[in-house]
Amino acid sequence: MATQESDPESPDAYDALLEEYGRIANLGHAASVLNWDQEVMMPEGGTPARSQQLSTLSGLRHELLVEGDVGDHLDTLEASDVSDEQAAAVREVRHDYDRQASVPRELVEEISATTSEALPTWKEAKAEDDFSVFAPVLEELVELKREYAAHIDDSRDPYEVLFEEYEPYLGLDTAERVLGRLADELPPLIEEVRESDADLADPFEGGTFDTDTQEAVSWDILDTLGYDWERGRLDTAPHPFSTGNVYDARVTTRFDEADPLGAITATIHEFGHAQYTLGLPEEKHATPLGGSRDLSVHESQSRFWENHIGRTRAFWETFTPKLNERFGLDASPKEVYEAANTVDPSNLVRVEADELTYHAHILVRFEIERDLIQGKLAVEDVPEVWNEKYEEYLGVRPDTDSEGCLQDIHWSHGSFGYFPTYSLGSVLAAQIDAAVRSELDVDGLVRDGDFDPIREWLREQVHQHGSRYTTDELVEKATGEPYTADYFLDYVNSKYGSLYDL
Amino acid sequence: MATQESDPESPDAYDALLEEYGRIANLGHAASVLNWDQEVMMPEGGTPARSQQLSTLSGLRHELLVEGDVGDHLDTLEASDVSDEQAAAVREVRHDYDRQASVPRELVEEISATTSEALPTWKEAKAEDDFSVFAPVLEELVELKREYAAHIDDSRDPYEVLFEEYEPYLGLDTAERVLGRLADELPPLIEEVRESDADLADPFEGGTFDTDTQEAVSWDILDTLGYDWERGRLDTAPHPFSTGNVYDARVTTRFDEADPLGAITATIHEFGHAQYTLGLPEEKHATPLGGSRDLSVHESQSRFWENHIGRTRAFWETFTPKLNERFGLDASPKEVYEAANTVDPSNLVRVEADELTYHAHILVRFEIERDLIQGKLAVEDVPEVWNEKYEEYLGVRPDTDSEGCLQDIHWSHGSFGYFPTYSLGSVLAAQIDAAVRSELDVDGLVRDGDFDPIREWLREQVHQHGSRYTTDELVEKATGEPYTADYFLDYVNSKYGSLYDL
Repeated sequence: MATQESDPESPDAYDALLEEYGRIANLGHAASVLNWDQEVMMPEGGTPARSQQLSTLSGLRHELLVEGDVGDHLDTLEASDVSDEQAAAVREVRHDYDRQASVPRELVEEISATTSEALPTWKEAKAEDDFSVFAPVLEELVELKREYAAHIDDSRDPYEVLFEEYEPYLGLDTAERVLGRLADELPPLIEEVRESDADLADPFEGGTFDTDTQEAVSWDILDTLGYDWERGRLDTAPHPFSTGNVYDARVTTRFDEADPLGAITATIHEFGHAQYTLGLPEEKHATPLGGSRDLSVHESQSRFWENHIGRTRAFWETFTPKLNERFGLDASPKEVYEAANTVDPSNLVRVEADELTYHAHILVRFEIERDLIQGKLAVEDVPEVWNEKYEEYLGVRPDTDSEGCLQDIHWSHGSFGYFPTYSLGSVLAAQIDAAVRSELDVDGLVRDGDFDPIREWLREQVHQHGSRYTTDELVEKATGEPYTADYFLDYVNSKYGSLYDL
Repeated sequence: MATQESDPESPDAYDALLEEYGRIANLGHAASVLNWDQEVMMPEGGTPARSQQLSTLSGLRHELLVEGDVGDHLDTLEASDVSDEQAAAVREVRHDYDRQASVPRELVEEISATTSEALPTWKEAKAEDDFSVFAPVLEELVELKREYAAHIDDSRDPYEVLFEEYEPYLGLDTAERVLGRLADELPPLIEEVRESDADLADPFEGGTFDTDTQEAVSWDILDTLGYDWERGRLDTAPHPFSTGNVYDARVTTRFDEADPLGAITATIHEFGHAQYTLGLPEEKHATPLGGSRDLSVHESQSRFWENHIGRTRAFWETFTPKLNERFGLDASPKEVYEAANTVDPSNLVRVEADELTYHAHILVRFEIERDLIQGKLAVEDVPEVWNEKYEEYLGVRPDTDSEGCLQDIHWSHGSFGYFPTYSLGSVLAAQIDAAVRSELDVDGLVRDGDFDPIREWLREQVHQHGSRYTTDELVEKATGEPYTADYFLDYVNSKYGSLYDL
């Protein structure tokens, strides 16, 4: 066990902290494997045992963090002369410690029990298209999460406190500024696209694409981009995700026989996440600085590959021949490029949305969940407000709650504050893309199928730092300027202006 | 957390024991998933992270068992008036506690980390046919396990102490007596078979059987036997195994294009293991009585299905039509039955060995590992001694270490004392088979493809008891008499006498 009588000047407390943290981190990595297995491999009947395993692991992680010597080590180290790197490690553990130590275990358990109940209730409400079935448990969750936030810091906006669970170092004010700009500037662009006469190609229309071939294409894609198969694998999951650590970062995708581009973009997206994980500092594995930066940065990596590589004309110049060969098609790169970038504001489903209207979906959820947590919106009013906002942002109004405010699972998880990181990541992806392009001829490299320098740039500027720097520091280090929506807005205006002859 | 001030008369200490044990058991079940993943799914590069995870889990299991309140609860309960079932639970936890309390955590973690490293090293050594690659880590493991045994009881033979890890309730003396009878009585029978003029059929000779079709056949086999796919799955692994819990018990097999019966018998064997796991008492999951009895009993279940069902004439009367259909053959049940029971003393591979020479393979390993642990044999001499013993028991000498002493994975797991349970299980399988046949018309049922009553008998007489009874109690309960080699020896004499016209 870690010793408690460390000399304040010595690194003993630091070594002890690292040792304890290592066990906590390893339990987390073990839980990731169990979660991956549950989604990808586990037979249905395995759920009761798996739930118990995961609950034991998360209970032990909590216990090792807040009931052992970690708090003392943090106090010691904060009063000591430590290196910058040690200070960064202390900052990371302190953040987790303070949050977990301030929330009573009973509340954590109550939230866990309520979300367990909320999941089938949400499914039932969605199936019956009846929000009133879901409303009571949603109300309960909002209340519990407000309470949760108050335990952490009752002097601050509870939504801000919850947001920091997913994105501790960006600030809700920054997030709101960026999202506000999207809210101001995207709807007019979407409106212009809607009114454009441009007719984008769809060489896949009406076709059926068998899943074995689609799987082969996903392998091709990962080969092309340079995925390290020695440290990863590709499987299918109903909701694609990526998980793992620097030694073993796996991706999943899913196949729709009518939509081969869906699997391709999902594969590239998850490749981006995995690539971040594989680029983390190996020597810092299972230490406080060995993890990735938070969700916005992670999402910036997946969206960079998905949008700024996988949805470029250059990429389809490289990959269309292979695609044609696999599917027996005769599409041109231009046609596939257009199909991959068609904007469809009438599509109400976030996970199927194009790169442009995607953010309207996020904005609606963000504004509603913020108002719910801040007590400015009653749960019963959610369906009406949801529909109004869809009309405002996308010019469409859902016919039913099932395709409206009940479409996503996240609120039944109690994950308030999570949604904005999707948009924040896309915005950051554009800023990083501009930085990469200021140094590399990205389109030329992509056309040559030479992705090494791009992967290398990201590894050096972003991945290898792990969580050494805060999000704002990392953004500034990697791109040379603070986090901004400018690049994203330039990018979408230019891209869709050209595609839709605006 | 469990309370320490339980009233000696109350069941508080028992409830507290169950709670703590539940966490320990769940960590064990989590580790099983990680091990399954490592053997079946994990990309090669994942080893360093996985080793750390497994080492953390085993360290925490150790800590929860011996550093918390479990010892006090056991003391309290042993001084209390408890039910028979509670006493059995206390007996099980006490056995683990006493062993683990004597072993320092650092040693446990070192063994776990070393075995994780040993696995890829063994694979490499086997692929390169170079024992010297594996020798250093094997030496390390022998040393660590000797140390381990000395911590538990340094007054006793370390091999006996290690054997009790896998088979605590049978005694190494019983094991040696049974193995001694096999060593005495099998070689003359093998010799008779060798000299027999009987020419057994082999309808698969010279054929090539593609692995996709073989996989389909393994699925057919599991369907036929009644495997519960809601709680299991089939995959491939270089060394087939089964793992899991009552909710999720998975099997693996492997395919050799020249030998379709190899995959079939492996699949049936692992089905037997999984069937035991799936028959454990669900309401006792993650409690001290919810696990299976020890390895001899587990192996009796796999060998029962593999040999006493899967290698019977009746089974091939049922299954040959499906086999012919899959492979486009025209074999008769008699021919397949003969092929499945051909004795081949020249086959060096244990897992491919026939039911009769199999035990010679076990005897070689048993004697070598016992000598290694007892310090009577140096690691560097293993290949030579291995080859000599093969000559002695089977009249053949391996040409390479890959097909000699490197063939099996177990030593890389540090599982010394485990091998004898293979033979002990086969012997018990024959005893159980005799008991089943005294109540059921097994051959008739198998011919009708009606496996339900057989599965049900085993569930009722063996599986559902979990670890409620000791091995000797369970054997006597299920078969009506103590553990004996009589039935096995009768069985092989009669079966091979008839097959080989002896």
